[in-house]
Amino acid sequence: MMEVISEHACFGGTQGFYRHASKEIGLPMRFSVFQPPQARLGPVPVLFFLAGLTCTEETFMIKAGAQRYAAQHGIMLVAPDTSPRDTGIAGVDAGWDFGNGAGFYLDATQAPWAAHFRMYSYILHELRQTIVREFPAQAGNIGIFGHSMGGHGALVLALRNPEVFRSVSAFAPIAAPSLCPWGQKAFGNYLGPDQAAWQDYDATQLMLNLPQPFPQEILIDQGLGDKFLAEQLLPEQFEAACAQAGQKLTLRRHAAYDHGYYFISTVIEDHLAFHRRILNAQT
Amino acid sequence: MMEVISEHACFGGTQGFYRHASKEIGLPMRFSVFQPPQARLGPVPVLFFLAGLTCTEETFMIKAGAQRYAAQHGIMLVAPDTSPRDTGIAGVDAGWDFGNGAGFYLDATQAPWAAHFRMYSYILHELRQTIVREFPAQAGNIGIFGHSMGGHGALVLALRNPEVFRSVSAFAPIAAPSLCPWGQKAFGNYLGPDQAAWQDYDATQLMLNLPQPFPQEILIDQGLGDKFLAEQLLPEQFEAACAQAGQKLTLRRHAAYDHGYYFISTVIEDHLAFHRRILNAQT
Repeated sequence: MMEVISEHACFGGTQGFYRHASKEIGLPMRFSVFQPPQARLGPVPVLFFLAGLTCTEETFMIKAGAQRYAAQHGIMLVAPDTSPRDTGIAGVDAGWDFGNGAGFYLDATQAPWAAHFRMYSYILHELRQTIVREFPAQAGNIGIFGHSMGGHGALVLALRNPEVFRSVSAFAPIAAPSLCPWGQKAFGNYLGPDQAAWQDYDATQLMLNLPQPFPQEILIDQGLGDKFLAEQLLPEQFEAACAQAGQKLTLRRHAAYDHGYYFISTVIEDHLAFHRRILNAQT
Repeated sequence: MMEVISEHACFGGTQGFYRHASKEIGLPMRFSVFQPPQARLGPVPVLFFLAGLTCTEETFMIKAGAQRYAAQHGIMLVAPDTSPRDTGIAGVDAGWDFGNGAGFYLDATQAPWAAHFRMYSYILHELRQTIVREFPAQAGNIGIFGHSMGGHGALVLALRNPEVFRSVSAFAPIAAPSLCPWGQKAFGNYLGPDQAAWQDYDATQLMLNLPQPFPQEILIDQGLGDKFLAEQLLPEQFEAACAQAGQKLTLRRHAAYDHGYYFISTVIEDHLAFHRRILNAQT
């Protein structure tokens, strides 16, 4: 069952926060949904947003200013939390880049993480099915985007499941996690030292291994004043892989913008319009 | 001297957070400024935003989505903190509706508050002069708005200083503080039990006592799903005072909307357009 934490009128629609008992995670999980005004008339397209390190299901809904455009285009927004919570695992709070708030949108295979850290399957199956069941959502018309760790998650979920996620974009994604300290720490602990197991969760590796490109253009925005760009994000790796794979990619580099939500809010309008073009064309 | 805490590119302009040693408050104070892109070409109109109980100088800049419209209209946004901080006064943290985060935009006259709780003079004189000195601001072209406690503050500052604040609007303001529990607690402690001293900080009383109406229309937006409406906000008192005083007021009541920033973000575009009409007409 789904529990309503709070609901708020917003741009003619409803901004809500919810909790449900997740079988995939084995614990209660929170998520947020913005229902545009058009959802009162019938099912609407859905756009999942995956947030970055330290964030929760609230961050995007509070900071990005996306509801205005979602209301304009008639798109439902869904944001999960960024990890399981209250797992009781020793050390889960030891760092801000691993454990709590840092689930990396994968299914962990290593103890003690494997029992609860299953964000990949949680989003792909359980949360998606919950949204389709509980809200006026078009089950076959879903896009996904995300920021930083969540940009990584969005790219991985879309590239591996193009029949589920019809459109994908990202803000400052961790684009080649196997090659950066954040990704190496997370993958090493969640997936183990064998890097063969990392490839299915690395957007750049996936792009090189795909039997065919993602059916739609991919949009990525990156600020050039982002202090994580050179060491952690590596969009040039993903860009090169897309070129090699024949994947259509628009990677926009923006002078001065940093890694935060003041950057995201500046370009969010373009991302909603991007997803609307793809999602509406397929309804 | 003014210290830069952080600056972030945002909608082609700059979102900044700053600290300065305030003489009026007798302590360091923080404030935030959004400079629109037009500020690079010369001084621009300025709009002060005063936030509500428990908020800081960050709240509005993070949650309201105002920068998009400020960038569009070429208006600078300025948000002070909501009270002095680190005063060391016993009991200053005892409640969320008084003391820290609850300065009520007045000059306290009662011990132990009078030494530091001088938000009225701080904003009217010191912060305003700091903005005009340190940023490309049009000194004679300033508006003010605010939310809840900050709506009260914006109305009081504008009604008492129409030569300084040329435009004023509010979201769910505490419109008759002498008649509500929040206001009675704050005024009783900051100003003392003699209610004659409260009149200069009560927008409804001020409106009844003004020698002439405020020179411009006043805009107020109020959600009808706001749980504080009937007991704390009392916009109908201000509305009646405006009618009696011949003050032009647009008070819009919105079904379902609550007291939070999802409401503010829904109507923020209208407020920026409202202030732009008045401020641009007078440059």
